[in-house]
Amino acid sequence: MKIYLASGSPRRKELLTRIGLEFEVKVSEADERSEIKDPPALVEELSQRKALAVTRELINEGESDFLVIGADTVVSLDGKILGKPGDAEDAADMLRSLSGKTHEVYTGVTLVRPGEHNINSLREAGKQENFETYRRIVSPELKINTFHEKTSVSFCTMSGEEIEEYVATGDPLDKAGAYGIQGFCARYISGIEGDYNNVVGLPVGRLYREMKRLGLPV
Amino acid sequence: MKIYLASGSPRRKELLTRIGLEFEVKVSEADERSEIKDPPALVEELSQRKALAVTRELINEGESDFLVIGADTVVSLDGKILGKPGDAEDAADMLRSLSGKTHEVYTGVTLVRPGEHNINSLREAGKQENFETYRRIVSPELKINTFHEKTSVSFCTMSGEEIEEYVATGDPLDKAGAYGIQGFCARYISGIEGDYNNVVGLPVGRLYREMKRLGLPV
Repeated sequence: MKIYLASGSPRRKELLTRIGLEFEVKVSEADERSEIKDPPALVEELSQRKALAVTRELINEGESDFLVIGADTVVSLDGKILGKPGDAEDAADMLRSLSGKTHEVYTGVTLVRPGEHNINSLREAGKQENFETYRRIVSPELKINTFHEKTSVSFCTMSGEEIEEYVATGDPLDKAGAYGIQGFCARYISGIEGDYNNVVGLPVGRLYREMKRLGLPV
Repeated sequence: MKIYLASGSPRRKELLTRIGLEFEVKVSEADERSEIKDPPALVEELSQRKALAVTRELINEGESDFLVIGADTVVSLDGKILGKPGDAEDAADMLRSLSGKTHEVYTGVTLVRPGEHNINSLREAGKQENFETYRRIVSPELKINTFHEKTSVSFCTMSGEEIEEYVATGDPLDKAGAYGIQGFCARYISGIEGDYNNVVGLPVGRLYREMKRLGLPV
């Protein structure tokens, strides 16, 4: 069974490698717009969309024995979701709001495998242009497992100068909540509660347990 | 002011680099035997010995404007200290005892700088062979700050096979408590409470705050 990571994030790739999994990265565009406001529900939904987009491609390409792992991470402060900052100013605003407070990081993960004796109908369904229609048709034919992990992260108080200096490193610009826990920003984090790797982008402890529970090769 | 990290650990070096500090690694042998049974007291004592051993060398070499950072990490389970395992069997025993439980990781950190107008007397003291005598003489002439951080780490239950497989990777053999949180073992860790980097070997968040509080360049 081939394993595919449905994410272009180098951090997720590194984490999955670290726990000893052999896999390929395969990214397929998924619509990341959503009306969902509840962070755990949102990351579960987006992780499923990402995993299904790659699943569709694999089936179209004729693959039938695989596992796709999709993941999505958001930062949530006082119930409000912080995605990736639009620009440096946006990043500075986010960091100001996180400074001196504890926030939550949610990562949703979806595992998708084809069921048995269904590859042809799945291939046929792959022609559907609309994602929702596609999902409705294929979901009963696939084995889909979705879960999320939550980690609390406590920031020290950052001065305006410190925020400017950190934004200038460029590190915040491609990251949800405008920070990377594993980089320069480590100096401003007093502690966490939960899985650290969940904040980096993939809760590999929980993922390993789920894969074992499902009888998947790990 | 030149900064010296009094530790040969590549993990500590990486962490310190990551938060943007410029420093050199300088290791000097310190006696790590101790009767102290209390984990925080032990790591504070050993971090101070390591920092002072390097301080002595620097002063002997004629340096007068520097900061030495010493660190020591231990794992503590139900009040019992786990150091580095002696061999593979010892490592497996340690992992069996950690499996399915929450334990504590303590890192002690000591910052040492010379005080003012005292370099000659410090240099004279450097001739003392006995470490305790040396420390008694120089302590009033140095600025010494010591602290520790505690992080709780929760392990999933590991099977005998999983323990064997992990020990066979070699990763446990050079690490206190027989595991590295940042490697393969991440798959067995369900969560932590506190500073993750403290478990890796250096609480860079607290270190940064202490250096700032002391007016040191960061």
